Amino acid sequence: MKALVYNGPRDVSVKEVADAKIEHPMDVLVKITTTNICGSDLHMYEGRTNVEAGKVLGHENLGEVVEIGDAVGRVEVGDIVCLPFNISCGFCKNCERGLTGFCLTLNPGTAGAAYGYAGMGPYSGGQAEYLRVPYGDVNCLVLPEDAGEKENDYVMLADIFPTGYESTELAGVKPGETVVVYGAGPVGLMAAYSAFIKGASKVMVVDRLPDRLKLAKKIGAIPIDYSKESPVGQVLELTGGEGADRGCECAGYQAHDAEGNEQPNLTMNQLVRSVKPTGGIGVIGVFVPEDPKASDKLEKKGQIAFDLGLFFSKGLQMGSGQANVKKYNRHLCNLIHEGKAKPSFIVSHELSLKEAPDAYKHFDAREKGWTKVLLKPAA
Amino acid sequence: MKALVYNGPRDVSVKEVADAKIEHPMDVLVKITTTNICGSDLHMYEGRTNVEAGKVLGHENLGEVVEIGDAVGRVEVGDIVCLPFNISCGFCKNCERGLTGFCLTLNPGTAGAAYGYAGMGPYSGGQAEYLRVPYGDVNCLVLPEDAGEKENDYVMLADIFPTGYESTELAGVKPGETVVVYGAGPVGLMAAYSAFIKGASKVMVVDRLPDRLKLAKKIGAIPIDYSKESPVGQVLELTGGEGADRGCECAGYQAHDAEGNEQPNLTMNQLVRSVKPTGGIGVIGVFVPEDPKASDKLEKKGQIAFDLGLFFSKGLQMGSGQANVKKYNRHLCNLIHEGKAKPSFIVSHELSLKEAPDAYKHFDAREKGWTKVLLKPAA
Amino acid sequence: MKALVYNGPRDVSVKEVADAKIEHPMDVLVKITTTNICGSDLHMYEGRTNVEAGKVLGHENLGEVVEIGDAVGRVEVGDIVCLPFNISCGFCKNCERGLTGFCLTLNPGTAGAAYGYAGMGPYSGGQAEYLRVPYGDVNCLVLPEDAGEKENDYVMLADIFPTGYESTELAGVKPGETVVVYGAGPVGLMAAYSAFIKGASKVMVVDRLPDRLKLAKKIGAIPIDYSKESPVGQVLELTGGEGADRGCECAGYQAHDAEGNEQPNLTMNQLVRSVKPTGGIGVIGVFVPEDPKASDKLEKKGQIAFDLGLFFSKGLQMGSGQANVKKYNRHLCNLIHEGKAKPSFIVSHELSLKEAPDAYKHFDAREKGWTKVLLKPAA
Amino acid sequence: MKALVYNGPRDVSVKEVADAKIEHPMDVLVKITTTNICGSDLHMYEGRTNVEAGKVLGHENLGEVVEIGDAVGRVEVGDIVCLPFNISCGFCKNCERGLTGFCLTLNPGTAGAAYGYAGMGPYSGGQAEYLRVPYGDVNCLVLPEDAGEKENDYVMLADIFPTGYESTELAGVKPGETVVVYGAGPVGLMAAYSAFIKGASKVMVVDRLPDRLKLAKKIGAIPIDYSKESPVGQVLELTGGEGADRGCECAGYQAHDAEGNEQPNLTMNQLVRSVKPTGGIGVIGVFVPEDPKASDKLEKKGQIAFDLGLFFSKGLQMGSGQANVKKYNRHLCNLIHEGKAKPSFIVSHELSLKEAPDAYKHFDAREKGWTKVLLKPAA
Repeated sequence: MKALVYNGPRDVSVKEVADAKIEHPMDVLVKITTTNICGSDLHMYEGRTNVEAGKVLGHENLGEVVEIGDAVGRVEVGDIVCLPFNISCGFCKNCERGLTGFCLTLNPGTAGAAYGYAGMGPYSGGQAEYLRVPYGDVNCLVLPEDAGEKENDYVMLADIFPTGYESTELAGVKPGETVVVYGAGPVGLMAAYSAFIKGASKVMVVDRLPDRLKLAKKIGAIPIDYSKESPVGQVLELTGGEGADRGCECAGYQAHDAEGNEQPNLTMNQLVRSVKPTGGIGVIGVFVPEDPKASDKLEKKGQIAFDLGLFFSKGLQMGSGQANVKKYNRHLCNLIHEGKAKPSFIVSHELSLKEAPDAYKHFDAREKGWTKVLLKPAA
Repeated sequence: MKALVYNGPRDVSVKEVADAKIEHPMDVLVKITTTNICGSDLHMYEGRTNVEAGKVLGHENLGEVVEIGDAVGRVEVGDIVCLPFNISCGFCKNCERGLTGFCLTLNPGTAGAAYGYAGMGPYSGGQAEYLRVPYGDVNCLVLPEDAGEKENDYVMLADIFPTGYESTELAGVKPGETVVVYGAGPVGLMAAYSAFIKGASKVMVVDRLPDRLKLAKKIGAIPIDYSKESPVGQVLELTGGEGADRGCECAGYQAHDAEGNEQPNLTMNQLVRSVKPTGGIGVIGVFVPEDPKASDKLEKKGQIAFDLGLFFSKGLQMGSGQANVKKYNRHLCNLIHEGKAKPSFIVSHELSLKEAPDAYKHFDAREKGWTKVLLKPAA
Repeated sequence: MKALVYNGPRDVSVKEVADAKIEHPMDVLVKITTTNICGSDLHMYEGRTNVEAGKVLGHENLGEVVEIGDAVGRVEVGDIVCLPFNISCGFCKNCERGLTGFCLTLNPGTAGAAYGYAGMGPYSGGQAEYLRVPYGDVNCLVLPEDAGEKENDYVMLADIFPTGYESTELAGVKPGETVVVYGAGPVGLMAAYSAFIKGASKVMVVDRLPDRLKLAKKIGAIPIDYSKESPVGQVLELTGGEGADRGCECAGYQAHDAEGNEQPNLTMNQLVRSVKPTGGIGVIGVFVPEDPKASDKLEKKGQIAFDLGLFFSKGLQMGSGQANVKKYNRHLCNLIHEGKAKPSFIVSHELSLKEAPDAYKHFDAREKGWTKVLLKPAA
Repeated sequence: MKALVYNGPRDVSVKEVADAKIEHPMDVLVKITTTNICGSDLHMYEGRTNVEAGKVLGHENLGEVVEIGDAVGRVEVGDIVCLPFNISCGFCKNCERGLTGFCLTLNPGTAGAAYGYAGMGPYSGGQAEYLRVPYGDVNCLVLPEDAGEKENDYVMLADIFPTGYESTELAGVKPGETVVVYGAGPVGLMAAYSAFIKGASKVMVVDRLPDRLKLAKKIGAIPIDYSKESPVGQVLELTGGEGADRGCECAGYQAHDAEGNEQPNLTMNQLVRSVKPTGGIGVIGVFVPEDPKASDKLEKKGQIAFDLGLFFSKGLQMGSGQANVKKYNRHLCNLIHEGKAKPSFIVSHELSLKEAPDAYKHFDAREKGWTKVLLKPAA
């Protein structure tokens, strides 16, 4: 089958690889119809991870079940399914509490497995014609009858919609509260969108790319351009000097300052200043335990110079980590199905699989207009 | 009246000061019978804060109501009361949600007021004969009929028992879980004690002072001496390699490494390594927003070099801040009253007010046997 | 001053009564500009309670502060304030946990006080020119600068908006869930409106009055007319046979069956059948501990024949009680201020105080078009 | 193999039945070493359910894994395992949220499956030599190395310990609170025991059988004998007239009044009177949706005459349903393993399988001394 393969830093290509197939009685085989390029794919693309050459990428996947293992009981051939990016067993200590992003079974020695991802187990990604899904009954979200019509919305359930949503959960967003989101990439926009779904009274989104800020404004958020003025000052002004009730970190360790230099502690410390005393922060942008190629000395060790003194004085709370997609995907699916959510508003490109290498190049360059790329391997 | 006054770094004395008195119709005047020296008093004593000379110290106070303001309705003369160290109004946005440690009324411009404390408003402390208590109906915990007999237990409700307890709340301790506490000072011991009250299956306490570790063992915790061996390794071994479910930071920015050097990021990064993926950390040891006299460059700015990459990879959560005493003091009072808790086990000294200056000296030196000092101004 | 006085069953009139005035240093005196007639006023109007003749009614009040007591510190003369219907002290065991609907101070011997209400203490209501507000700093929600312009929205914060909202809290409504509301009176409509604010994917509202069902439809809910067909069957059909995730009881003991007969257990047992296993029910419609004038034998004793067997088999949960308005009014106020909520959509009449007796008559008869009456005593 | 079979009302016998065996690749086969008789077995024994003749009873099971299906990945032959009484798939909408007592997969058309139980699916019970366990990776709690030594403790994890514990969760018990438990059978005693584990300050247990009250006292609870005096009055007296913070219903529909007559609404209405305003009630005693053989007219329909008026006035909350064992069994297992819990204190008899019919007779008669019977089929 054809698949998008990582060859090395900034080098991916579409190649023939061994066919995905059923390997365990609980497996399900899915023919991929939509698979997205994620911002976190770029960490691998740029060579900032230890992902091995030859890896098939792609963890935001949707498609049709074409074969099932002997022990599969719930999922049926013909079902249209969306796959959470984190693969889970359903029965380990973490999965049974809904912490499926930290499954202890599928990537032994670590907590958490994923398709086509550095350090997340031996699983191939879905930027390919077919995908093997372990523990199919656990991992397949079977979509309703409008799956075809709303495919570009439902595919967001694989990762960025639940991920953005989880940042609002970790931050503790409640109806009527004010929320500031740092980073208006796909996940940040989903965080802002989720904050509105949860009844936020005011949502502010900080970025410097006009395309992204325009999308933030489109969904009703207040765009804050940090390239011109301190975002902290703007947030304080918009909240009567108090700071936002809640903040979401959706940029991660590759955040850039106004001059365009990478500054890993930028958004975290701005959040500590932007959120009011007793507030909460949800960290869903990726931070890594080590980053040997970083220029920043602390960042090499996976550290940041963090304003813990102010954090403590303000009595803040923060939660972090890759999203437990299964905790949210059913309910967010309902919202799409009932017409209450339409996360496809961020899609800028729908391309074929063979156009993927070119798309990586444009997306990695944060080119104007490249907000979210969907690949259609079956088209 | 007589009171313990801060004159300057490592210089306190008992002096005649203006009598405490009713200044507002909601005030209550309390004759102090027990008032403790707290570990956080030492930050002021050592000159590591901006507290002004002339300040009466003391925020762990218990005594008898001797006069009430005209608008006081619940508290009566003769009541024996314990006063939460944080003073709250009961009606601001934070107080009405139970966040009384971050009252917006009593120390305008900041969130949070306290008796005799740097940066917490103009309120005199209770290491004195009398104490003025603002909003008496809100701030007085009226004690049950065994107040006299168990005075050394009940006085712990002013601060360290609820503070230690809150660290377990912020960490999210649930029955059957394992907990590691960094710091076996009074607050750390109360954290360990609280973890057992909440049904922890195993509690580990990290320190290097034999006195403190002995007390930890006495209440059933496993003492971990970090002066000899990495505490992280010991915690992992005691938890089957997984790490503890929850961790409590009860040391703060003046934590010392095995060689006795102050290292502000020591305990936080050890906690990140000691707690299992998806776990929680409660930070109740004090960290300050700026610390000009620190030798560490980051610490001067109130920052630490923090392992955020590992924190994120493990999907950890953390909460912080001075305890909202009123959220817990009634229930902890019940436990003392019913004989289920006896926090006075940490008391090493009961002294007169005039012995206070000397006690500060010994306690500040962490001298052997000086675990907790109670002053008895009325004795 | 002029006020609406209860004289006896179905007999109210506007009379001269003693002026409201400051009686305690914490009191605030409010000149009423809007005060609503509530569905629960009708229980008193109809003589179904033990309210004494001479009582001034009215517990949904908004106005301008014209005088403050000596100990008041936060509220100022000139503030436009909305008053929660339940009066609270801010410092008792219940208030300090946010359970201000069950204040133990202001109506000794019972939990909960209110203005102008049977069994809720000696407090006069606000269907009058002036209102005395005890513990003004605790009870006044100071409104933002658009208070005048949005007065008909903000007045809903006194009772029905937080009350409707609390039914969704008690039921446990989460984003993406389905909700059924029994009763489309003002509170039921606010419950449905609140469910949408919280991100419900589908809201169904059960009633038989066309006016009310029309309003339900207007806000995006699915109206269910139970006069023609079993509402339970309709709910099951709309939820794929499963039942709704959550249910709200907003009718109370005077619910009527399709034939128009009072049947106190009607809605509760229909809810048990309409909600899916593991679901939740929020009961905010009024049920009373005794009702001597009821025809139903159990209802006389405040009992209903309740389907506990089915409730248990389905593993349901339910919460109940008068709303703790202060838990929600600030956040709901933000939503109005930011233009995210406009609860005045239910208003049908704005009348002068002297028109009140006539309005009671029409509203009590559930006449077509009388959905919600606002009185303007200062107009 | 040999098994205890239900033949008809009050008629059980040990017979040869078809061997339990692996039927699905996820199955596990367990050789039973301990299996308990549960109070809920008596509902079937007495003919008060529709359980079919020929059913093998027994849902509190522990034993050794002797065979595993092809797709089983976590559980291994030789593991000593305790089986939650409710059987769950791990992947349905309810299981994935931890509501494993309401699995939608294993008993289609209903929510919830169990071993050897009326209306809970076609699964044979474990009062037998062997037991087939569906979805073995999901349903087996693998016990630690002291499984043999503490077998009588660990077997309580199958049902009554988590069930008693869940009643305290549904009631909302928090450290320092007072708790009243109605019913001192095995589940009620486990509820009281769990309340202490969670840090309750005072636990009161209501029953009329001296044996049971003696056990309640043994674990530190206050026994309340309702045969002599109203339990409500005694609870109010023990709580300063306020009522308990929380209440647990552990008796169910077959509760008996002081004269020994079955009165299905007895405990629920006493709880409403025993719990303070804003309190919570956990209902874990069994109530059934229909009970044709009951003498009480309402009970025939699964209804009780319930004090909803008082419940509402007090703003109470209640949760109900069969326990989601998997939510608690790991943590309770830790407590047993660390020596913090020893639930075997209720065991009165350890018998062989062939003695089971006789044991049913004695246990059903609530004979003195028959508090909890353990069967040892492998002995």
